[in-house]
Amino acid sequence: MAGSPRDKLVSRHIYWAMLRIKNPIFFIMDIMTQGIVQAGINTVRVLAADAVQKANSGHPGTPMSLAPMGHVLWTSALRYNAKSPHWANRDRFILSAGHACMLQYAYLYLTGYEDISLEDLKQFRQLHSKTAGHPEYGLLAGIEVTTGPLGQGFAHGIGMAIGQQYLASRYNKPGFDLFNYHIYAICSDGDLMEGVSAEAASLAGHLKLGNIIYLYDDNHISIEGDTAIAFNEDVAKRFEAYDWHVQVLPDGNDVAAIQAAIERAKAETQRPSLIKVRTHIAYGSPNKVDTAGAHGAPLGVEEVKLVKKGFGFDPEVSFYVPDEVLSYYHAAGSRGAKEEEAWNTLYKNYKEKYPELAAEYETLSSGQLPGGWQEKLPVYKTEDNPKGVATRKASGDTLNAIADALPTLIGGSADLAPSTDTNLKKYPSFNFDNHGGRNFHFGIREHAMGAILNGMALTKGILPYGATFLMFSEYMRPPIRLAAIMKIRPLFVYTHDSIGLGEDGTTHQPIEQLAALRAIPNLTVIRPADANETAQAWRVGLEHKDGPVVLVFTRQNLLVLDQNKYAKASNLEKGAYILSDTGKTPDIILLATGSEVELIVKAQEQLQAQGIAARVVSFPSWELFEKQDAAYQESVLPKTVRKRLAVEAGIAQGWHKWVTDEGDTITINRFGESAPAEQVFAEFGFTVDNVIKKAKALLGK
Amino acid sequence: MAGSPRDKLVSRHIYWAMLRIKNPIFFIMDIMTQGIVQAGINTVRVLAADAVQKANSGHPGTPMSLAPMGHVLWTSALRYNAKSPHWANRDRFILSAGHACMLQYAYLYLTGYEDISLEDLKQFRQLHSKTAGHPEYGLLAGIEVTTGPLGQGFAHGIGMAIGQQYLASRYNKPGFDLFNYHIYAICSDGDLMEGVSAEAASLAGHLKLGNIIYLYDDNHISIEGDTAIAFNEDVAKRFEAYDWHVQVLPDGNDVAAIQAAIERAKAETQRPSLIKVRTHIAYGSPNKVDTAGAHGAPLGVEEVKLVKKGFGFDPEVSFYVPDEVLSYYHAAGSRGAKEEEAWNTLYKNYKEKYPELAAEYETLSSGQLPGGWQEKLPVYKTEDNPKGVATRKASGDTLNAIADALPTLIGGSADLAPSTDTNLKKYPSFNFDNHGGRNFHFGIREHAMGAILNGMALTKGILPYGATFLMFSEYMRPPIRLAAIMKIRPLFVYTHDSIGLGEDGTTHQPIEQLAALRAIPNLTVIRPADANETAQAWRVGLEHKDGPVVLVFTRQNLLVLDQNKYAKASNLEKGAYILSDTGKTPDIILLATGSEVELIVKAQEQLQAQGIAARVVSFPSWELFEKQDAAYQESVLPKTVRKRLAVEAGIAQGWHKWVTDEGDTITINRFGESAPAEQVFAEFGFTVDNVIKKAKALLGK
Repeated sequence: MAGSPRDKLVSRHIYWAMLRIKNPIFFIMDIMTQGIVQAGINTVRVLAADAVQKANSGHPGTPMSLAPMGHVLWTSALRYNAKSPHWANRDRFILSAGHACMLQYAYLYLTGYEDISLEDLKQFRQLHSKTAGHPEYGLLAGIEVTTGPLGQGFAHGIGMAIGQQYLASRYNKPGFDLFNYHIYAICSDGDLMEGVSAEAASLAGHLKLGNIIYLYDDNHISIEGDTAIAFNEDVAKRFEAYDWHVQVLPDGNDVAAIQAAIERAKAETQRPSLIKVRTHIAYGSPNKVDTAGAHGAPLGVEEVKLVKKGFGFDPEVSFYVPDEVLSYYHAAGSRGAKEEEAWNTLYKNYKEKYPELAAEYETLSSGQLPGGWQEKLPVYKTEDNPKGVATRKASGDTLNAIADALPTLIGGSADLAPSTDTNLKKYPSFNFDNHGGRNFHFGIREHAMGAILNGMALTKGILPYGATFLMFSEYMRPPIRLAAIMKIRPLFVYTHDSIGLGEDGTTHQPIEQLAALRAIPNLTVIRPADANETAQAWRVGLEHKDGPVVLVFTRQNLLVLDQNKYAKASNLEKGAYILSDTGKTPDIILLATGSEVELIVKAQEQLQAQGIAARVVSFPSWELFEKQDAAYQESVLPKTVRKRLAVEAGIAQGWHKWVTDEGDTITINRFGESAPAEQVFAEFGFTVDNVIKKAKALLGK
Repeated sequence: MAGSPRDKLVSRHIYWAMLRIKNPIFFIMDIMTQGIVQAGINTVRVLAADAVQKANSGHPGTPMSLAPMGHVLWTSALRYNAKSPHWANRDRFILSAGHACMLQYAYLYLTGYEDISLEDLKQFRQLHSKTAGHPEYGLLAGIEVTTGPLGQGFAHGIGMAIGQQYLASRYNKPGFDLFNYHIYAICSDGDLMEGVSAEAASLAGHLKLGNIIYLYDDNHISIEGDTAIAFNEDVAKRFEAYDWHVQVLPDGNDVAAIQAAIERAKAETQRPSLIKVRTHIAYGSPNKVDTAGAHGAPLGVEEVKLVKKGFGFDPEVSFYVPDEVLSYYHAAGSRGAKEEEAWNTLYKNYKEKYPELAAEYETLSSGQLPGGWQEKLPVYKTEDNPKGVATRKASGDTLNAIADALPTLIGGSADLAPSTDTNLKKYPSFNFDNHGGRNFHFGIREHAMGAILNGMALTKGILPYGATFLMFSEYMRPPIRLAAIMKIRPLFVYTHDSIGLGEDGTTHQPIEQLAALRAIPNLTVIRPADANETAQAWRVGLEHKDGPVVLVFTRQNLLVLDQNKYAKASNLEKGAYILSDTGKTPDIILLATGSEVELIVKAQEQLQAQGIAARVVSFPSWELFEKQDAAYQESVLPKTVRKRLAVEAGIAQGWHKWVTDEGDTITINRFGESAPAEQVFAEFGFTVDNVIKKAKALLGK
């Protein structure tokens, strides 16, 4: 077998080992272990080059440069058990530089995660494979969050760190350090250029999230070339300004130095840690190392052979994993088994001592809600609220009514708590001196808030919500989309939902935001019509599975619809329902959402007086209605009644399908105006008179 | 007249003057001038309190605290002529803290801008008034950019600074320093918490934009209370890390100190300047100073009286402006007249010496384009491109073909120039050592790129474009919207426009992005079908007025449609056109945009063979088609032909109105997949066979 790939590799090991002897640090380490370390690291490098080459697509350079960092993470830093990847107290790892995913896939396979095989590596970037072009949460155990859009992994991790701290504050007890895991991430230059990471970093420093250990892959290369063409700020100094603990390592191949830096980061419990590591993209590729060409394209067949030769691998063999390497990494991947066992015992004892807390945690972390909370939902009577109730106010009432019953319902606002009415009045703030508080001050950082909410939602048991004005949903669309992709359930609360916000004017009045949110697949948007629908919107939102929910509320007061006169607000769960019907087949159907429902309710009465039978449909959620069966949909919007008028203070886009070719809309096709709300509504035709006029026009009357 | 408001004010002036004598700096200044300075500043404070109170809506606290800063700006720092507000070499002022707009309105009125009166201040936040809830570009001269959404003014200013530098590089000549103006801004805590400002600040430091002077209103207050609840990073240190010149002033009422700091900032030509100024929100309001309550609500009638009393104003009189104050500020507002006169002479001489450059500048700055550039547009023949051409490639060809003819067409990419094909190959980069370069490296900062493009577009004469993948339009929606509101014309270039990007997968494949962009009022979205439509899309984009344009291109090659066989690509300007018709009344109309047009072209042929007459409509832009007259629209989509099938690799939202109740779509209602493009297209039904199948199903065949 002389001359076989394995033999060559063994000689190579010995060579490396000899070299290493020169470095005194390694005298204390087993020379053969050093050999296997390098063999392991180089196996990952070659696997990455092979997989990208086979797919003829992908990013080989970063997995090659990051393999030593990955080695430290999966062999010593991370606490995990590959055979039990969902263990609650595992460390979380985030590949914020998602394009480097072959690094993660390789280590997940090598350390023995059971749902990934060598064949999966060969299927990299192929249809329906688990090894997608960027890491996707849900496709593979060990992937804690979907990444790819830069900056998101970084910011999601801050939310996961908050999740850990909240779990610890609520459930840890003396002698029962149940939740003490760390959040690790590998971040790229791109991650640190994006504003969302800047927002999240500032907040993380402020909150003293000492459980964060982020490794910054300082490789000096981005797609357009040397990062110095656009990015020569002093990153370390910037993070110090955020009050992070910052370390700078000159050599990304220095495994011992990375290990030592991570140990120091663990020892730092008051500040998040950033470890800046100088790496060389495509390390091992003689012609592509340190070049932008190695970022997003295969190295090329010949260059991959050169890589293999350089590392002592057989250039003609692909996807080669030496048995020793596999055994070595498998052993690393099961290191955590004993720790998990000890934790399970700890948890068992905890459960005996704190049965209620344990039961609560088990319910919540399994995605269930504790019984009885729905009974706390407020009910509004028309006669008690002669001036009406703003749905933001009803939302605040609801949140406060259910807060006691849902102890992990936590959230806050991007500096708009008083305006969005999202404070839990009985509870303290989550701040640097209290990681058990329930009210979050995200600062004026909507984008980070979105990502952080997702990170919190990825922490089983936590029910996060975050609020701002509907307009500023525009600042946070990337994390909303990621939540929809990941099928996780943060609740995004948006108030001041239309021109009804009034004087703040054009820049603050949503026009296209409802349409732009409805366009996102797997996102459920709910715009309730009054206070009772608002309470029901919270119910539906909290009970929703497998996707994020957007709740949209008014600034201004709305009529409380009489629950004795109109259909029950609990019908909101069906997305659309007949709020008020006519005795006979309707001449026309009036549809509206949110604040515009009271217009069509009033119009119905006046039309009735004029002999026109109008059905009134409250239509709080297109997505929920689309989930109903055809019979129900037909019962609300019969095909035979095609004269339909939709009223919504937003862009018309998408309404045509609901009103049919024979219908019409009262909507808005331009930007808003700065003026008192009632004047703006009148200016844009949102009056009962105009509804009546348009309805009659449709009927040719 | 003893005891009149004016008398009281005069005594007050004397009192202040006496106090000021204690400060040695003021010994060199005229004591009476100090009196008028304070009177002026306090007049602004009281006007702001009055206007917000009268509107019963708005933000009184910041104009009150920022009045001294405003005083320095409008009386000494800013170079401007109130009577000639569009003078090309004026300094630009941006109120990034847009909610403080009463500050700007008051100073514009007081310094003699002719389109704002005291009556306009009384109409603050009323319907159709010029004094909107946030400053709106176009409503009032002197407002250089619409602000309100936080962080945007800050980042737009970076683009304006780039615009100045590019104009200077191109047009300034020895002895003719035509463009040497500064960009000033007042920024709030909120502005500095937003990620977009972080991105822009990092780039501005990198680019050494020494013409930036930003004042940071460090008032320690945001809506939820003390900023320390969410924001205690070291802002000064952070900006030093970005390589800004940073000064810290302890007292926002110290007019001389602000003046001196601005002089130092002007002297610093290599780095942008940040002057951090400690202020006290609602200064002068005895019960609201330094409270969040003064941020976004009127002080209250009684409190406004107390403010007036404290400043020696008659508490019963509103909107009082002492004559001396008005004269004093009018004088300040006309300071620039002589400078402008001198500049006009300079420009006259310049024009004589450099007639071609002057003519070029006059053409471009008036919004026109130099003649003949359209003739440079590339034309593609089918036979020359047997493999087809990616529209991103055709876009790159076009850009490079017209670059010589359009010397202020400048732009770049958020680190995706090679992928988006947006480099001007003959031209250098705009970088810290060359402010005359035409290729911009925005870094991985899409959001800042959007805002910076807007700032560049606000510089008359500059034609900016910026590129990234269509997916990452999601990071930059707030500035896209602002461009649409402001009716300015940056060109946003988005490539990799569908699932056709292939292996990068779910996180990178646009689904809802076209719909979400089309939802924005006054934004024109163009998705050309082939290389020739791409060249035409650039033509239409560059000729477009009064709003931003989005150009959407493919990663993958597309068939070049034979211009001898099909309708001319120049028809793209109509938004939709009959690409290929049938001799008789069509049985069905096939509609598509971009890469899906070749599917319907091929389907038409096969349907023809099966005896089905299908009209093929290329539909690159909904917005352009909506601008056509009814007769043209009817000629393309006749009401009598209601069997219609639309094919677009995106969400169906909005298509219903084009296909009618009797039509259908081939669209995508879920997230994408990581795999080679052709496999993903097949997976989602984008095949000629499926088009035929669906078309026949619609016809009941």
